[in-house]
Amino acid sequence: MSTESKNEQKRILTGDRPTGKLHLGHYVGSLQNRVELQDKYETFLIIADVQALTTNFDRPEQLSNDVRQVARDYLAAGIDPEKTTIFVQSMVPEIAELTIFYSMIITVNQLRHNPTIKSEAEQYGYREMTYGFLGYPVSQAADITFCRANLVPVGEDQIPHIEQTRKIVRKFNNMYGDIFPEPEALISKFPRLMGLDGKSKMSKSLNNAIFLSDSAEEVTEKIRQAKTDPARIHKDDPGHPEVCTVYHYHQAFNQSAAAEIASQCRAGKIGCVGCKKLLAEKLNEFLAPMHNRREKYLAKPELVDQILLAGTEKARQEAAKTMAKVRSAMKINYFTS
Amino acid sequence: MSTESKNEQKRILTGDRPTGKLHLGHYVGSLQNRVELQDKYETFLIIADVQALTTNFDRPEQLSNDVRQVARDYLAAGIDPEKTTIFVQSMVPEIAELTIFYSMIITVNQLRHNPTIKSEAEQYGYREMTYGFLGYPVSQAADITFCRANLVPVGEDQIPHIEQTRKIVRKFNNMYGDIFPEPEALISKFPRLMGLDGKSKMSKSLNNAIFLSDSAEEVTEKIRQAKTDPARIHKDDPGHPEVCTVYHYHQAFNQSAAAEIASQCRAGKIGCVGCKKLLAEKLNEFLAPMHNRREKYLAKPELVDQILLAGTEKARQEAAKTMAKVRSAMKINYFTS
Ligand code: SF4
Ligand code: SF4
Repeated sequence: MSTESKNEQKRILTGDRPTGKLHLGHYVGSLQNRVELQDKYETFLIIADVQALTTNFDRPEQLSNDVRQVARDYLAAGIDPEKTTIFVQSMVPEIAELTIFYSMIITVNQLRHNPTIKSEAEQYGYREMTYGFLGYPVSQAADITFCRANLVPVGEDQIPHIEQTRKIVRKFNNMYGDIFPEPEALISKFPRLMGLDGKSKMSKSLNNAIFLSDSAEEVTEKIRQAKTDPARIHKDDPGHPEVCTVYHYHQAFNQSAAAEIASQCRAGKIGCVGCKKLLAEKLNEFLAPMHNRREKYLAKPELVDQILLAGTEKARQEAAKTMAKVRSAMKINYFTS
Repeated sequence: MSTESKNEQKRILTGDRPTGKLHLGHYVGSLQNRVELQDKYETFLIIADVQALTTNFDRPEQLSNDVRQVARDYLAAGIDPEKTTIFVQSMVPEIAELTIFYSMIITVNQLRHNPTIKSEAEQYGYREMTYGFLGYPVSQAADITFCRANLVPVGEDQIPHIEQTRKIVRKFNNMYGDIFPEPEALISKFPRLMGLDGKSKMSKSLNNAIFLSDSAEEVTEKIRQAKTDPARIHKDDPGHPEVCTVYHYHQAFNQSAAAEIASQCRAGKIGCVGCKKLLAEKLNEFLAPMHNRREKYLAKPELVDQILLAGTEKARQEAAKTMAKVRSAMKINYFTS
């Protein structure tokens, strides 16, 4: 798609903490959406490593791998570095500068009411929180605004987070003039993907995930062990697909056949072994193009580094434009006016 | 003094918020000391404009003047830009980056125990505080360590502030290796200079100050109106110099003659008018070389800008060295190792 046909007025900021390999839950929850959005909007994709330091401050050695891992997963999933600017948060000092400026226009009390902070405080106690964690909403506002983003793709549960950024932006704009667009939540109904255990959301830490980088053998084996309808003992027992993880995955990755599978299951006309085999084939078919792209980057890891360096350079150029506006508005551009 | 004879191991960080013209209280309280120290130590002198934003966020237009004003006062007072690196805080983004990193190794609770935060909280309430103000000790730690300073000249009352920075440094070093020297307080017994009202410390906001930039006429007039011993009505009434502001200034700026003046006052042998005239002459003598230096910079204001730009450039070079060490220690130098 040519640049001209993009809506050039609208810019997206999205991203993740680099906390390891991405899985199918990430794909249906956000990656798929990003791959579509990059054709319509100018997209900045942040690898939020500084925020990962907040929680992993004592084992930073893994960050270097994690940053490259998540970049490789993005590229494999179809993020196109020609369309999306992938960059590393800690290499954009302007984000830190904005965080400092914003920290002066938000009170401790306002932060205490932020939903993330509130739920963390309930768990671990408010005073034991690090100062940086308390400031997470401020840092998030800096992430979003450093490139003057208009839109932030989020699920409905994250709307309050964007609201905090909007408040900071409104206050800043009121004081200094219209520097930033008020970023809007671009709300999508992201399906939640169940983990292989059929109990919780798919998550790396729960050991119930199928990773985008899993080989065909690994996928087949994980599906083979997935929980199904416990009522089915014999192949011709009538099944209840609605309680079966395998069926949920058919719905997500084998949509055209899902209804037929459900009725065969209910009628006891398909066995779980065969049903799982079908799913594994479908999933591997789905993952194959990702593996192909990944192979390219695994063979030449320097390509990933080049993409990250170029993306970060582009992000910094945009950050420099923002800071020039900000410094001018705040009248701290002492030697350039 | 040649660079070789300086103790090259030791580096000083000192500075002020740019809040307007400096006065005699600043001179005896810190400037005089800095002028002496610059011969012995490599000195970094921060104009802490970001911290001034914390309290003046809604009227930033005056910062530009204040930054130049304080620089001119430094230069007039004898700070030598060949010996001292004068720089502008907001132009060193590495300080913001360090602030973010430190904010992850200090808890909200630790900050609440900091004496500055505590006394502010008692006055205005803790929750009404801005997030940035709560983080003042973190930002101070970043100011001190960005150039890996060894020493911070302070009065005794400020020792707890340095202690907070030392704690942050110790924690950081424990986690990542010996990156920073633990900065030490370089304690001086700074005399407190009374204001012209004889009631409070000299302070711009109390309107009781003699500014380093006051003309000879202004100084003479201010001294003429200064409070003296209220018991002296007639010229030959015996006086009590210990309660007289004018006498305190003689002690500070006319030391060799102070004892003689005290005994003449006690004996009723000198009138207040004459005594004040003597002081005004002495003060103007003292301020004359400052006026000379100031004239040079007022005639060519671009010289001040050049000094600030060169100082800031040097500070940034030092900051870049620090950040290279920090990134390497934290293992976030992804593309350079
Ligand atoms: S046949 Fe398929 S959908 Fe039905 S219970 Fe077995 S695995 Fe689940
Ligand atoms: S003579 Fe001098 S020291 Fe004595 S009261 Fe007057 S002004 Fe003060």
